[in-house]
Amino acid sequence: MSVFTPVSEAELAQWLRNYSVGTLVGLEPIKAGIENTNYFVTTAQGRYVLTLFERLPADELPFYLGLMAHLARHGIPCPAPIADLSDRYLQHLNGKPAALVTRLPGRSVERPGEHDCEELGLLLGRMHLAGRSYGGYLENPRGAKWWRFAAREVLRFLDAPARRLLEAELAFQAGQRFPDLPRGPVHADLFRDNALFSEGRISGVIDFYFAGVDALLYDLAVCANDWCLADPAADRRLDEKRTRALLAAYHSLRPLGEAERQAWPALLRAAALRFWLSRLYDFHLPRPGMLVHAHDPGQFRDILERRVAAPGCWIDA
Amino acid sequence: MSVFTPVSEAELAQWLRNYSVGTLVGLEPIKAGIENTNYFVTTAQGRYVLTLFERLPADELPFYLGLMAHLARHGIPCPAPIADLSDRYLQHLNGKPAALVTRLPGRSVERPGEHDCEELGLLLGRMHLAGRSYGGYLENPRGAKWWRFAAREVLRFLDAPARRLLEAELAFQAGQRFPDLPRGPVHADLFRDNALFSEGRISGVIDFYFAGVDALLYDLAVCANDWCLADPAADRRLDEKRTRALLAAYHSLRPLGEAERQAWPALLRAAALRFWLSRLYDFHLPRPGMLVHAHDPGQFRDILERRVAAPGCWIDA
Repeated sequence: MSVFTPVSEAELAQWLRNYSVGTLVGLEPIKAGIENTNYFVTTAQGRYVLTLFERLPADELPFYLGLMAHLARHGIPCPAPIADLSDRYLQHLNGKPAALVTRLPGRSVERPGEHDCEELGLLLGRMHLAGRSYGGYLENPRGAKWWRFAAREVLRFLDAPARRLLEAELAFQAGQRFPDLPRGPVHADLFRDNALFSEGRISGVIDFYFAGVDALLYDLAVCANDWCLADPAADRRLDEKRTRALLAAYHSLRPLGEAERQAWPALLRAAALRFWLSRLYDFHLPRPGMLVHAHDPGQFRDILERRVAAPGCWIDA
Repeated sequence: MSVFTPVSEAELAQWLRNYSVGTLVGLEPIKAGIENTNYFVTTAQGRYVLTLFERLPADELPFYLGLMAHLARHGIPCPAPIADLSDRYLQHLNGKPAALVTRLPGRSVERPGEHDCEELGLLLGRMHLAGRSYGGYLENPRGAKWWRFAAREVLRFLDAPARRLLEAELAFQAGQRFPDLPRGPVHADLFRDNALFSEGRISGVIDFYFAGVDALLYDLAVCANDWCLADPAADRRLDEKRTRALLAAYHSLRPLGEAERQAWPALLRAAALRFWLSRLYDFHLPRPGMLVHAHDPGQFRDILERRVAAPGCWIDA
């Protein structure tokens, strides 16, 4: 159960009078998600998602909402924030910062094939090109600085081999510098459950609340570690066909360069490290109300170990 | 045939590389419309309308596109302009100013009933409230100043009774001043064919290229003269039930005041005058390529005469 802040129909109906979306027809809590309170909202006009922000720093919210608005008006199928009558995306409801965004159709794909990975690559390419003209700036909030913070918090819970792996990886990553990689706004959390498909196409990319400015290639690394795992995935290696499909489709829109080829193995490791750390953190230091959804940290430890041992494939760019 | 500027698939596919909407799948000219060249455009991402502006002054286009973008992000179902990779709504194609906007679902209703007029009233109310925070400004381009210009051009084509009616109405309207009426961006051309319905709801309001800032009540007058004509409409009177449905629905969102009640008969006449004049103008002074679509000016002459004789109903606001 991830509704931290309940909202009644009466409260929402009153709140929606500040918007131009028509009268409230229905309200349904969304159980998935561990960071915010979310409701499906139906009005006489259409279908929306209401989000009450439980944890995100208030000064980061304009970056996320502005990025979604920017991408939506470029034709990227992401939730479009709805402006209220005073022309603001961010409001308050029941004491929490709150926003209303469009609800997108489609369903996520649990076992993506080559075609799905190709669609994802095209979507990422379009999204990165469209994001270039976005004026907002927020350093990736789960970047290197956060790794060091999270590592300090979780090290005491780890056994000796895990501790060695974590410390070695942090040392390795500290030695990586990629000043020449193209940067821009990245989703940074585009796992399978954050992409909706309809009729074989991506009809929605959702949950931009880990977005930030980083190397564009990092988005591909996050995706590869989730979408392209070999099946069965016991050894966590990347399936070559799906990885190549992802990269080649992306490359057709935003050509990947030599600096990116060289950085790929390190970024795959960085993406694995980031999710291993956040899962360790959520597992060992859970916040109230989120225990049910804590993911197994072991999966990303295994992915990281595998990427250290063998980085996986690249395209012939 | 209203394609003044042909666009080939190859030209469009190339042009779309400046956008983030995916690759071109299909292109189909739109025959309706007399002012611009329009195409339905289908891409891997979705359905759009491409408009090449043939006649509108270039300095007015940002007002229209900005208004649509503003209303769309407030949840009004109007075409949303798509920004290109340099973050602009307005581009050029084959020598003409051009824009890509979302294509909305639904069909227009030829014989609207009370429920449809109620839906229209609600939509207009929401649209006017959302429009209040729009920063752009353009005086209604078909307002009193244009009436005098158009009247000078068409008077010579009129018989004596029509000339007397026109001159008398211009004199009457010149004596009307409504400084206290609420003003804001109005669609100003929301005829039945510019509203799309789906499952009994308005799913789209299209063609904002006559929009401008004027008395909000003027939008209702334009609508009443088209949507609420009694059936059979030989005498051009307003059907009381549909007119009341339109006004009452609007009033429930933006209450109409005493000044608006008093202005209503004059605005119904103004709205009739505006379309009589533009139809006279297009009929007697056609531009190349638009003859086929010229509307009969007589209809709005009759409507004007009827409104002069008997203004029609109001709600008990």
